[in-house]
Amino acid sequence: MTRLYRIEYDGGPRYAAERGGQWRLVEGDVFGAWTPGAEIASEGHRVLAPVQPSKIVCVGLNYKDHAAEQNKPLPAEPLLFIKPSTTVIGPGEAIQAPGWAGRIDHEAELGLVIGKRAHRVPLDKANDYILGLIAVNDVTARDLQNTDGQYTRCKGFDTFGPIGPCIATGLDGRDLAVRGYVNGHLRQDSRTRELIFTIPELVAFITSIMTLLPGDIISTGTPSGIGPIAPGDSVTVSIEGVGALTNPVVLQ
Amino acid sequence: MTRLYRIEYDGGPRYAAERGGQWRLVEGDVFGAWTPGAEIASEGHRVLAPVQPSKIVCVGLNYKDHAAEQNKPLPAEPLLFIKPSTTVIGPGEAIQAPGWAGRIDHEAELGLVIGKRAHRVPLDKANDYILGLIAVNDVTARDLQNTDGQYTRCKGFDTFGPIGPCIATGLDGRDLAVRGYVNGHLRQDSRTRELIFTIPELVAFITSIMTLLPGDIISTGTPSGIGPIAPGDSVTVSIEGVGALTNPVVLQ
Repeated sequence: MTRLYRIEYDGGPRYAAERGGQWRLVEGDVFGAWTPGAEIASEGHRVLAPVQPSKIVCVGLNYKDHAAEQNKPLPAEPLLFIKPSTTVIGPGEAIQAPGWAGRIDHEAELGLVIGKRAHRVPLDKANDYILGLIAVNDVTARDLQNTDGQYTRCKGFDTFGPIGPCIATGLDGRDLAVRGYVNGHLRQDSRTRELIFTIPELVAFITSIMTLLPGDIISTGTPSGIGPIAPGDSVTVSIEGVGALTNPVVLQ
Repeated sequence: MTRLYRIEYDGGPRYAAERGGQWRLVEGDVFGAWTPGAEIASEGHRVLAPVQPSKIVCVGLNYKDHAAEQNKPLPAEPLLFIKPSTTVIGPGEAIQAPGWAGRIDHEAELGLVIGKRAHRVPLDKANDYILGLIAVNDVTARDLQNTDGQYTRCKGFDTFGPIGPCIATGLDGRDLAVRGYVNGHLRQDSRTRELIFTIPELVAFITSIMTLLPGDIISTGTPSGIGPIAPGDSVTVSIEGVGALTNPVVLQ
């Protein structure tokens, strides 16, 4: 397994590949052909959002336990919504909570980073279109979600889409731990084997509707245990094999 | 008033400025500084989608007559949803209707093209952030809208975001005719003075939530008269002063 980090290096963003603890600069295009280059330090880098997606396509209610927690029936099909590119922040960057918006929640999710243009992808080819796995925090203004009905505003604020810390390639996503922590306390703890719609099913379903571009992310839904975060908190999404994505919360 | 067209010229996309029927190539950046260059023919060009937005932010139920038509109460705040960049097509390109999706509707709308990065724009500065006006067809799979509740899938299919034919700059958007035609028959006929939330109110509201990037579009909502379109149809959105955006409908 190789983890692709996007780091600040020599004054610009640069991809680095970590394998077995050894870090090397990426020569080439992570969405095309690349080779490992010069070895660099294995720590001390400023880690950036691993990709700049044109959109994050999210799935509502894709864990049975979360659907029960929200008193909602299991969906017959994936329920989609979109977080715009302007929600994206990287590890360590602040989630800016609007003071007027009421309750803000964390939602720990496994994300899929699309590797190449994906249009009507058949189930059995879905994995060919996934560059790797990533952690996503689908930050949600819960009160506004209930007010609006539509999920766009409540999930679309600038900074409400932390992603990171890397893109884990060559990792089987079918049974990974998905955990959410607030100030070090475990709040969400599930596994991707509990997904209602599987990774290939999501890729096939979404690309039957809209084309996904390289770097786009599918966020696969959150398990039970969602809860409020507030200015001063530190929130972490941890995906087994990918790593931990931690962001502070500040008042907007 | 100047209308900015994006056309195919010498094998590549190029902006041209039309003023009083005279067309000139644009030298420079329409989102920055530009000057009118060489005069070109005033017809015969292939017209492309005038911009490539990172997102189209749409407003539901922003005409009183449409809210009544949908049996929905007037909203207290703008109800937002997003059409991804992959919905966008230009004039003359085909709207691809999925045969399995049931009823597909036209929605004629006035769009606002954002000219510069817009973040928490005050009401009285809103017009400074608008490059110009455009016609938008917010194509909607009506049956799926009712099934899903969320507007993402039903409005997010590839080709469901025709925009064009130009960006009209220096045009006052407060009282323009908004019309929708199917096969030449007038189906929607209203004026932007009937908007529930005005143009400055929409810019201020949306940018208090999410940053808008140059080329992003706010689509201001559709008036009454929405109705089905089917393969073989030709659908036109006409905005007074902007022009007519016509697209054929084909079976996906």
